[in-house]
Amino acid sequence: MTERRFSIKAPGGVMEEMTWVDVREAAAAGLPAVVAVGSTEQHGPHLPLNTDSILPAAIAARAGERTPLVVAPPIRFGARSRALSGGGESFPGTLSVRAGTLIATLTEVLEGLGRAGFTKICVQNWHFENTGLIWEACDLASEAHPGVRFLLLEDPMPSFTQEDLEQLFPSGFVGWDVEHASVMETSLMLAIYPDLVRRDQIADDAAERHPSWDLVPAPPEFVPASGVLSRAGDASAEIGEKFLEAISGRLLEALATEFDCAVA
Amino acid sequence: MTERRFSIKAPGGVMEEMTWVDVREAAAAGLPAVVAVGSTEQHGPHLPLNTDSILPAAIAARAGERTPLVVAPPIRFGARSRALSGGGESFPGTLSVRAGTLIATLTEVLEGLGRAGFTKICVQNWHFENTGLIWEACDLASEAHPGVRFLLLEDPMPSFTQEDLEQLFPSGFVGWDVEHASVMETSLMLAIYPDLVRRDQIADDAAERHPSWDLVPAPPEFVPASGVLSRAGDASAEIGEKFLEAISGRLLEALATEFDCAVA
Amino acid sequence: MTERRFSIKAPGGVMEEMTWVDVREAAAAGLPAVVAVGSTEQHGPHLPLNTDSILPAAIAARAGERTPLVVAPPIRFGARSRALSGGGESFPGTLSVRAGTLIATLTEVLEGLGRAGFTKICVQNWHFENTGLIWEACDLASEAHPGVRFLLLEDPMPSFTQEDLEQLFPSGFVGWDVEHASVMETSLMLAIYPDLVRRDQIADDAAERHPSWDLVPAPPEFVPASGVLSRAGDASAEIGEKFLEAISGRLLEALATEFDCAVA
Amino acid sequence: MTERRFSIKAPGGVMEEMTWVDVREAAAAGLPAVVAVGSTEQHGPHLPLNTDSILPAAIAARAGERTPLVVAPPIRFGARSRALSGGGESFPGTLSVRAGTLIATLTEVLEGLGRAGFTKICVQNWHFENTGLIWEACDLASEAHPGVRFLLLEDPMPSFTQEDLEQLFPSGFVGWDVEHASVMETSLMLAIYPDLVRRDQIADDAAERHPSWDLVPAPPEFVPASGVLSRAGDASAEIGEKFLEAISGRLLEALATEFDCAVA
Amino acid sequence: MTERRFSIKAPGGVMEEMTWVDVREAAAAGLPAVVAVGSTEQHGPHLPLNTDSILPAAIAARAGERTPLVVAPPIRFGARSRALSGGGESFPGTLSVRAGTLIATLTEVLEGLGRAGFTKICVQNWHFENTGLIWEACDLASEAHPGVRFLLLEDPMPSFTQEDLEQLFPSGFVGWDVEHASVMETSLMLAIYPDLVRRDQIADDAAERHPSWDLVPAPPEFVPASGVLSRAGDASAEIGEKFLEAISGRLLEALATEFDCAVA
Amino acid sequence: MTERRFSIKAPGGVMEEMTWVDVREAAAAGLPAVVAVGSTEQHGPHLPLNTDSILPAAIAARAGERTPLVVAPPIRFGARSRALSGGGESFPGTLSVRAGTLIATLTEVLEGLGRAGFTKICVQNWHFENTGLIWEACDLASEAHPGVRFLLLEDPMPSFTQEDLEQLFPSGFVGWDVEHASVMETSLMLAIYPDLVRRDQIADDAAERHPSWDLVPAPPEFVPASGVLSRAGDASAEIGEKFLEAISGRLLEALATEFDCAVA
Repeated sequence: MTERRFSIKAPGGVMEEMTWVDVREAAAAGLPAVVAVGSTEQHGPHLPLNTDSILPAAIAARAGERTPLVVAPPIRFGARSRALSGGGESFPGTLSVRAGTLIATLTEVLEGLGRAGFTKICVQNWHFENTGLIWEACDLASEAHPGVRFLLLEDPMPSFTQEDLEQLFPSGFVGWDVEHASVMETSLMLAIYPDLVRRDQIADDAAERHPSWDLVPAPPEFVPASGVLSRAGDASAEIGEKFLEAISGRLLEALATEFDCAVA
Repeated sequence: MTERRFSIKAPGGVMEEMTWVDVREAAAAGLPAVVAVGSTEQHGPHLPLNTDSILPAAIAARAGERTPLVVAPPIRFGARSRALSGGGESFPGTLSVRAGTLIATLTEVLEGLGRAGFTKICVQNWHFENTGLIWEACDLASEAHPGVRFLLLEDPMPSFTQEDLEQLFPSGFVGWDVEHASVMETSLMLAIYPDLVRRDQIADDAAERHPSWDLVPAPPEFVPASGVLSRAGDASAEIGEKFLEAISGRLLEALATEFDCAVA
Repeated sequence: MTERRFSIKAPGGVMEEMTWVDVREAAAAGLPAVVAVGSTEQHGPHLPLNTDSILPAAIAARAGERTPLVVAPPIRFGARSRALSGGGESFPGTLSVRAGTLIATLTEVLEGLGRAGFTKICVQNWHFENTGLIWEACDLASEAHPGVRFLLLEDPMPSFTQEDLEQLFPSGFVGWDVEHASVMETSLMLAIYPDLVRRDQIADDAAERHPSWDLVPAPPEFVPASGVLSRAGDASAEIGEKFLEAISGRLLEALATEFDCAVA
Repeated sequence: MTERRFSIKAPGGVMEEMTWVDVREAAAAGLPAVVAVGSTEQHGPHLPLNTDSILPAAIAARAGERTPLVVAPPIRFGARSRALSGGGESFPGTLSVRAGTLIATLTEVLEGLGRAGFTKICVQNWHFENTGLIWEACDLASEAHPGVRFLLLEDPMPSFTQEDLEQLFPSGFVGWDVEHASVMETSLMLAIYPDLVRRDQIADDAAERHPSWDLVPAPPEFVPASGVLSRAGDASAEIGEKFLEAISGRLLEALATEFDCAVA
Repeated sequence: MTERRFSIKAPGGVMEEMTWVDVREAAAAGLPAVVAVGSTEQHGPHLPLNTDSILPAAIAARAGERTPLVVAPPIRFGARSRALSGGGESFPGTLSVRAGTLIATLTEVLEGLGRAGFTKICVQNWHFENTGLIWEACDLASEAHPGVRFLLLEDPMPSFTQEDLEQLFPSGFVGWDVEHASVMETSLMLAIYPDLVRRDQIADDAAERHPSWDLVPAPPEFVPASGVLSRAGDASAEIGEKFLEAISGRLLEALATEFDCAVA
Repeated sequence: MTERRFSIKAPGGVMEEMTWVDVREAAAAGLPAVVAVGSTEQHGPHLPLNTDSILPAAIAARAGERTPLVVAPPIRFGARSRALSGGGESFPGTLSVRAGTLIATLTEVLEGLGRAGFTKICVQNWHFENTGLIWEACDLASEAHPGVRFLLLEDPMPSFTQEDLEQLFPSGFVGWDVEHASVMETSLMLAIYPDLVRRDQIADDAAERHPSWDLVPAPPEFVPASGVLSRAGDASAEIGEKFLEAISGRLLEALATEFDCAVA
């Protein structure tokens, strides 16, 4: 649906809304396909469960305004949620799959994109728990499609300067690991899908304890009651627009560098 | 996104756009969750690749106008496409998964819905090739959640009278097996998502040969060039509205019968 | 053992009773191999547990009287039994496997037949719950043996005229879905393996409720006490002979059409 | 079919030919179920492919003449054939499965027997390559059915005295490892299923080289041209009867010792 | 073998060299078990292939000098090596397993430790590619052993101050991601296993290009010829001792915090 | 670590302590790689848990004194322990994996050795329960590396004369099946790793009952209290040296016969 908000350069588009003839044309034109690997996961009382899938798709669509590309169907069920990075599996509505299921799904989807004729496939991750599970899917799909180059962005964030961080995080940057349903994601949603944000429910929260290691099973003090892991209250559409520009900019840089895509 | 077009009764809704708090409330209210099992598959030169996922979700949302329910996230990657029922895997953009991957995904999603507190879960299939793979996922999820009742609609169609069929298929009914990207699906899309239909590309087509058995690998004469398996040209929004009413009506009948849902 | 009752044309035969030299000869002669996919499942108080395996093998052997073919070893453990089509897993003696196990077994057996030199392999299903699980096995075996053509009869029934149905079902035809341990199967057993039928135990029965959808776990009213899903009492050897002729006739038609087998 | 040749004591029987009511009765009576784990494998130019499945079933049926028991459906597809013990996978008609498939099948069948009410389940192996794969299936089924006792005969042979061996192997005993399609199996087939033996094809053979270790891939000199691994020419129905008595005797000893079965 | 170099407090020890009676005693005493998840992977021309397994085990043994613990058997085969973090699978001697195999192995080992009576199990990762694959193994083992607390150190490094980093990396710190066979690992090996280091082969190297994203298949410029990803030449036993102190210190901190271990 | 005790001929060595450059050189020189498949399993109150992994590695290293070879990393987690051959899974410290996990691990390690350039790979088993699981791993790895020859020693023992047996087993030979933590293994450990043997804990023991079949679950009388299955008290370093000579001698014979290795 991001197509409605962004004007992807022809013959690119949002693949789920394209016909097979469109896809054939886009692949024949050498366009890259961008596959988001997200999740269906609680994002606090103010963001929808599909936040992790529609945000990376929208970021790819934004990049598509400057270079033609195909936004492939996102992988919407991600690896099991962990308390310290996503609240954990106990939140109603968090729907996750086992590692093996995620790897199999992604592998088969990547193989399908290879069969469709795409030779430039970019996989961008937007769910911390997926990290480490994506590379093998690319490796396996690569065995079946040796002519395809897979570009993998496990961490979708660009590197920000200290000055950037101060602008993006008005109350101070406390680490990407707690940026779940917090400033960054809430701001992006306010910029792109404001009607999906319950503004009156935005609040700050944090796990009572957040060590640099993890415990299984997660003790109660690792789980913030609201599902928000940091300060969502600082979020704004303006900050969201800055993130959108920066993150889509890094995606464009990667596409230009590795796939020789011309960026307008 | 079907929420925008249909007014699901509160506290129901489209789960992907709900927050975890909404889901908790809906589950606590004893609402049923309806999971569509679809595909990402060619649907001719005129329908989008996500036809098999957005149609059953929209049908569930339509039913939600008469009884509160939750439209759970559809399973968007279905079993491998077969030439005689979906054109086969050779069409660009058809993205399928292996049987084991589909069963695992559905099982884990159903378990997640059980963990969320739903005790009434309806699974409705909208991709012929998924038939036979869904029941085991329900059975496995049932082992983990013995308190949940799973209602399975492998064939989403109600039984139509001869008179119905004559109205729905102006040139004559030739069988559900070839109703892929044809009258029924095209009409439903025209009724629900007209902006996703390439009206100027709608055409009739058929496999050169369509026996009652199957061959692997599929011979060329089993694959219609356009991906349309029958007469899409007869489609209209009016016919689509009739299908929408009939199919959502059967879903409501099932929900009322098995889950005691009150239908307005 | 069907060999004893039918005279399969040379150099065909029942593979389990052939030697490897026989199989080499049959494969070299270009004969088709016919693999039944059955089950070990309750068939009421009057039919043996192997009904679903020996019937399709016998039907193939009957076809073998008119064109030489090899009756390959049946797959005797099928997908989990469902209450509405086979009584369900609660009947003592029903021995089923998981979907993944069935697909793996069939795939490996089909690959073995390909390795043996068969290039024409017909898979005929005789257990409703297997439907939808067989095609992928053919597809996977086809990847390993691209020179083999797999002919798949998921539904073994020919299409009968209304007149046929009236003859075959004296009390009226109520649907194939309840033809489990009922008129058709009991009649076939009476015609082919009369000594395996407990004539004094033949009776009519039905699930108390048999909707067009399914429920998991199956409620008690879906399970007929006897395991018979319809009217077995109408069965006769004469009706069985008609079924045998009709079903083996359709198999022959498929073999002739797709494999150019000459039918005597 | 072994039922026809042996008179198993009531209420025992050959399960595949029993009804579910019979099985319920047998299980309720505390009878043991005996599951053969065999193969579909070349057995020289003179023995049928199902030798490894029908022999152990017949041996169990013979034991059933002295204590009531149920001959459960054999597992007819065994682990991949190895050149030095079964000729290897290159013989037409050898149909094997992967280790994981065998373990899954056996586990699920054993669980089904547990669900049927059997609490005494004996698994007897008759295919060398299955050794080592069976115990885990029992262990897994035991987790699901802790009240069942599984008796496992990985090696079905009793220990013979030197005198016995001299009688059984007229030209001298050369080791069980080469007793494939040789004296023991040919003799048993002559005693039990003489009509399935091609007497005019019985011959002696041996691998050109048969070390105590193995090589993969098997070099040609490991594979005897005929598939016979030793001296089949010494076989006779009389020797077969002695083997039948001895092997079924050991089965009875195990059933008496571990399951307290009364042996007549 | 680390036992020889470190004096783990009784009744702790290196589990592989302990007897089952020792293990029973250690578990009964409430000691934690520390499982390293390493790899068998090229580490340049100067370090052995088992670097990733013996280093974390030695670090645990060092921690064992201050609190009694059991160094459990390391997982010695890790996830597939990637060019940018380990050189990739093309180096002779790199022996890796698939993600599913690693998760299964670790899950089963953790379950075995739970069965042994350990209720405090610490998993410390020492191979970048394993990150993301370990948590699910803990989660699965936790389902089987709900009374066990799993402590997971995916990143074994403590946080160093800028001053620390300057001391540890004489030529400047260039990022943990390239610390493969470089200063940190070479120094640790010099401190702990100097006889396993080929001092004359220590050299600096780097991938020609090392972007923040990844490509599959890895282009040649991602793979340093030597397998060293940064400046190994700065390594020294003194630096190694500092790392040993710091990393084992963090492990002790985690054990003290989460398992209430008393640290001497 | 066996390298320290044995002087493997150059350019052979213990792979875990070699660098990738060493491995490349050894593979290029056509050396065989020897992979032990062991276990982590209780070995009585006097032997360490890694007995089954370090013994076969040491035996290979001893063979390496007479022909250059590479001792590949052992597979240290074996198939589930059975009471009658290893005491069973109930002993603390026994850490086993499922059959599928073992096959996958070994397959992937063998493929890695093939990728490293080895064309002669010897797999020697040292854990009874692994028997039957190893061949398929070789077969699967062979599919990926058809140019590699795999030599498989499932039973590592040479055939001993009666005179040999009398010397090796002072109190009489009672069968290899109970040689777990008994004379043979204890003697080998005394000869090779005397510091790992608790001499004061060596004792004789036996299962109360040890039939030629198995039971699952294992009854208490199958499990010797100490984990010793026979007479460990007869063990001595002298006997261990004889075993070492004999077993490594058979390995050398196999390497010479199948790989044309020159034995000094």
